[in-house]
Amino acid sequence: MNILPKSVQKLIDEFSKLPGIGPKSAARLVFYLLSKGEVDIQELGKAIYHLKRNLKKCSICFNISETDPCVICQDQRRDKSKIMVLQSSLDILAIEKTGEYHGLYHILGGEISPVDDIGPEDLRIKELLDRVKKDFHNFKRSEKQGSRTIERGPYISEVILATNPSLEGEATAMYISQQIRNTLFEESHKASQSEIRKNLKVTRIARGLPVGSDLEYADEITLSRALEGRREY
Amino acid sequence: MNILPKSVQKLIDEFSKLPGIGPKSAARLVFYLLSKGEVDIQELGKAIYHLKRNLKKCSICFNISETDPCVICQDQRRDKSKIMVLQSSLDILAIEKTGEYHGLYHILGGEISPVDDIGPEDLRIKELLDRVKKDFHNFKRSEKQGSRTIERGPYISEVILATNPSLEGEATAMYISQQIRNTLFEESHKASQSEIRKNLKVTRIARGLPVGSDLEYADEITLSRALEGRREY
Repeated sequence: MNILPKSVQKLIDEFSKLPGIGPKSAARLVFYLLSKGEVDIQELGKAIYHLKRNLKKCSICFNISETDPCVICQDQRRDKSKIMVLQSSLDILAIEKTGEYHGLYHILGGEISPVDDIGPEDLRIKELLDRVKKDFHNFKRSEKQGSRTIERGPYISEVILATNPSLEGEATAMYISQQIRNTLFEESHKASQSEIRKNLKVTRIARGLPVGSDLEYADEITLSRALEGRREY
Repeated sequence: MNILPKSVQKLIDEFSKLPGIGPKSAARLVFYLLSKGEVDIQELGKAIYHLKRNLKKCSICFNISETDPCVICQDQRRDKSKIMVLQSSLDILAIEKTGEYHGLYHILGGEISPVDDIGPEDLRIKELLDRVKKDFHNFKRSEKQGSRTIERGPYISEVILATNPSLEGEATAMYISQQIRNTLFEESHKASQSEIRKNLKVTRIARGLPVGSDLEYADEITLSRALEGRREY
């Protein structure tokens, strides 16, 4: 016998589908909602129902947005010479909170993961290469103007690979950096690698000990990366 | 500058209001929903929106229900001689899962907590006393039938106080047990306490060591209660 009213059971089931919410927490949430007024509950219901109504993906960076291009790509104050490659729009929040980065973004929409059957073609890697390629040509053209140098807007000078420091994230970052080099090699009619590197830096965020952590408890891979990435002090 | 679309920010704010969900988990939940199809999201939105539509409180036990009386109070197979007093409808789920209890319930709707300005009059204690009183009279009447004993349905023989084993829960349980004794004392035209006790047991769930726990880590109050409540083996 089901002792719960149908609408309550249904919502518990729906909440249980969310990540990190088990059946017990789901029941708690539902009974918390039941203790609230009808208006509050309907407010939440409507917010979820209409979540996707006006949302699209930015056609430049693939961030979730109400406008196209998104607020970040539209913002004239952002440094257009840098593109940070992230797995999801959620990661933008984390980066923006640091207040340290003012460039543009590119959202991959995941990471290369053979186990989950996600290959490079399932991510927005081609779109990233197109962005880089387009800028590369702009760059070339401005150089050909002889003695007069015409400013053709800020070109990409750095691609920052900020995928997760996990096995899949590392593989994705490595794949992308190779693809960028290969693409520019062909586009530049086989310029030398050092010349390409001079025009476009491809960087990876540092892996090391998290701030406030304890060396004693760090795992050996993190510690190796922290040593590898050491800097003069 | 708010970099999130309004509908996304609004839902993060709404989710953050739920117990146990901070702003970070809220953002995770919202981005998880964004990765789902429109239909799934609307399903959840509707489930929340219509949560309270057909719900009422059972007029007997105050459980949340689609019918009045609720499925439990209506169920003829339940042992109507027992009433378990609980703080919230959510607690019924936990008790039903044990499969050990087949009696009725009474939902208080909270616990006495002077800090939160919740007194006995804010809980459904009066309604509990009325239930007990009504049964007490039924009981009296069946006794008065002389040599013929007419079965007047199963009367309450036990009230189980199953409020939380916290300071407030204990105070609530103690207050209720006193109120039941006082009420029956008056209703019975001052029968002796032992006579009242014979007709109606008021019990409290056992406090002790949780199963699977470690004696070494138990706090002293729990341990004292476990000693106090020891039974012959």
